[in-house]
Amino acid sequence: MSKQLNIGLFGFGCVGQGLYEVLSNSVKFKADFQKICIKHPEKKRILDQQLFTTNKWDILNDPTINTVIELIDDPQDAYIIVTEALKRNKNVVTANKKLVAEHLEELLELQRKHHVSLIHEAAVCGGIPIIRTLEEYYDNERLTSITGIFNGSSNYILTKVFKENQSYQGALEQAQKLGFAETDPTLDVGGFDPKYKLVILALHAFGIILKPKDVLNCGIQNISSIEKNVYDDSSLQIKLTPSIQRLPNGHIQAFVLPQLIGTTHPLYNINNEYNAVIVEGIFSNEQLFIGKGAGAHPTGSAVLSDISALCYDYKYEYKKYYHHQNISLDNSAKIKLYFSGEKQNLEKIFGEDRAIEVENGGVVLAEESIQWVIDHQKQIEALSLFVAQIHNEALVPLQKWLKKYELVYALT
Amino acid sequence: MSKQLNIGLFGFGCVGQGLYEVLSNSVKFKADFQKICIKHPEKKRILDQQLFTTNKWDILNDPTINTVIELIDDPQDAYIIVTEALKRNKNVVTANKKLVAEHLEELLELQRKHHVSLIHEAAVCGGIPIIRTLEEYYDNERLTSITGIFNGSSNYILTKVFKENQSYQGALEQAQKLGFAETDPTLDVGGFDPKYKLVILALHAFGIILKPKDVLNCGIQNISSIEKNVYDDSSLQIKLTPSIQRLPNGHIQAFVLPQLIGTTHPLYNINNEYNAVIVEGIFSNEQLFIGKGAGAHPTGSAVLSDISALCYDYKYEYKKYYHHQNISLDNSAKIKLYFSGEKQNLEKIFGEDRAIEVENGGVVLAEESIQWVIDHQKQIEALSLFVAQIHNEALVPLQKWLKKYELVYALT
Repeated sequence: MSKQLNIGLFGFGCVGQGLYEVLSNSVKFKADFQKICIKHPEKKRILDQQLFTTNKWDILNDPTINTVIELIDDPQDAYIIVTEALKRNKNVVTANKKLVAEHLEELLELQRKHHVSLIHEAAVCGGIPIIRTLEEYYDNERLTSITGIFNGSSNYILTKVFKENQSYQGALEQAQKLGFAETDPTLDVGGFDPKYKLVILALHAFGIILKPKDVLNCGIQNISSIEKNVYDDSSLQIKLTPSIQRLPNGHIQAFVLPQLIGTTHPLYNINNEYNAVIVEGIFSNEQLFIGKGAGAHPTGSAVLSDISALCYDYKYEYKKYYHHQNISLDNSAKIKLYFSGEKQNLEKIFGEDRAIEVENGGVVLAEESIQWVIDHQKQIEALSLFVAQIHNEALVPLQKWLKKYELVYALT
Repeated sequence: MSKQLNIGLFGFGCVGQGLYEVLSNSVKFKADFQKICIKHPEKKRILDQQLFTTNKWDILNDPTINTVIELIDDPQDAYIIVTEALKRNKNVVTANKKLVAEHLEELLELQRKHHVSLIHEAAVCGGIPIIRTLEEYYDNERLTSITGIFNGSSNYILTKVFKENQSYQGALEQAQKLGFAETDPTLDVGGFDPKYKLVILALHAFGIILKPKDVLNCGIQNISSIEKNVYDDSSLQIKLTPSIQRLPNGHIQAFVLPQLIGTTHPLYNINNEYNAVIVEGIFSNEQLFIGKGAGAHPTGSAVLSDISALCYDYKYEYKKYYHHQNISLDNSAKIKLYFSGEKQNLEKIFGEDRAIEVENGGVVLAEESIQWVIDHQKQIEALSLFVAQIHNEALVPLQKWLKKYELVYALT
């Protein structure tokens, strides 16, 4: 019943080693590492030297290897490994969200053409089994929205800044020290990492292939003491929340923006490196999944579950995609936005009468489309403005907070 | 690829009707209601009268029907319907937790013998896809514990009592009016309903078949103003939390008890009719699933997902059970317990020196095994005592609260 997996592994860091230990201690598994491809042959390894190679083709061209596990850092190398493995009729497990998000169309086609399976639970929110759940459980449910916290590193930083009075820079350095943050922190704090995850979820949940470059992402880099003041006075918090929503016209709105949320928001207490995914469907109502999004163990657990699924020839069906109903990305709907920064910088975009002077700078509330933000993104960045969506329950407390500055402001 | 389902439906209440609407509006589904068995032929129906029958054998003996959906109230009738359908080689979807929990062994054997599938996501925590996740995602993970809030009705009552100062009786009546509570409220507030769910989860998560009668369940019926005082003074809350834990000896501890939890406990903010499941594994760490546990829509959503799975001939594999490692129920481990009630009643069990006099009654803290509670359960009930487990973080605040009564008490 269960298939013998002969595995070629790429990458033998924390996750790879953890995986090895679990697999070799498992009695149930018919899985065997035939070869492990590494970058640094000089490092001392816990396994027989003969098992290792630095040449990827030793694995890719080995016909006895039927399964490739790709756990390396570099998305370019990962792309070659994953596509060449699929072309050679090997099933693949990957944890590389950028690779998957950037090449969805090609990866689907390779799977179809070569009758192979590419699965990637570990690429999205580590140990939260969200892709499998979307594929298997919500496959016939008309979902209305997916949001959450998909990046542990920026959530860790936001928690430290708001709840423990740390500086943004200090919190970022600590996240890097703890191994949560990517080597290039822009991927995390700039909202690129959660955007890749959002693109992957959009396919499994809504059947739409989005191009990462078409999806707006603004990050938390320009957060300042203004937001800390908002928090101290009104308890409103900033979370970096990717969002996919089905619009009344049936099309999809998708973006990554920081969000001002109030104490009653389900993400309000998701702190530190925790991730969360909120799935809403017409029938199923709101479901919340919470867990650690990153780290060797949760990632290893997701990879393990994928390997186990391959023993039973598991494939994603992409039912919603193949039953595609001609939906597309729609950036035209207006959302409520909060901007902050130097008052004179805000005035350059919004004019003098819109910017409200607050302690340490200025604030503008606006209602604009995502497309408007995309069109102004370069200018927003150049002026070091911070931009966030205002969630419903945050609007009244925010307006109340602005009244402190004796400038009653009604959102148009 | 996908199989044509000819469905015989039992029960046409809220969930049944909702299901019908969704199925008949779905373009993707090859599912068709051939016959609907109802109890009350006199009720006006939205469908052609010819579709309905009051005779279960019209469905069970119809060879063209290959799928039975059982959504009735009565567990005895449900037992006959489900077992007879399986014996006639029909796949079955059921939402009846009592039926499933009471007959696990027989239901597994019938599935094996007749090569059919019985699936029952809707029986446990409505819209939270926990069984599928345990079967598919955690199938190779060594889980260490499962706990949560599995009963929306008692959680609703506890929320109203603690957070909205309602009386227990008033809150119970309101829950019944809103349709959360079973006709016999003892099933909910006495912890029977969550016990059936616990028994089902124990099979999927740990591969053990527990008999409901062997599993301790104490309810929230004897909650009193003492617990409200504890909450008002120390913020400790009571939640009704079923718990399955793997003991260091490899065996399983399982019981349903109210639990005193502190503000940092992940279930602290799960209120009203919400359900939650916390899954802990060695590798995957802690995962939290939150959603509405009951009601027509979440239940309908779970049934829909099960029907969809049957289109692809889905079966539970029960891998952990069939790879059974000789584990059994072990009630011997000691846990920290809180008892409250009339002081003289507490003294009848614990002696005069153990009962601490507090406002409106007495409290005893004790460390006893589950078996001890089972042995004393009749006495505890006869004396109208309230019993709860004390979660780690609640112990210090509880002891501090007791100091108010100038009786310093150190838990032995």
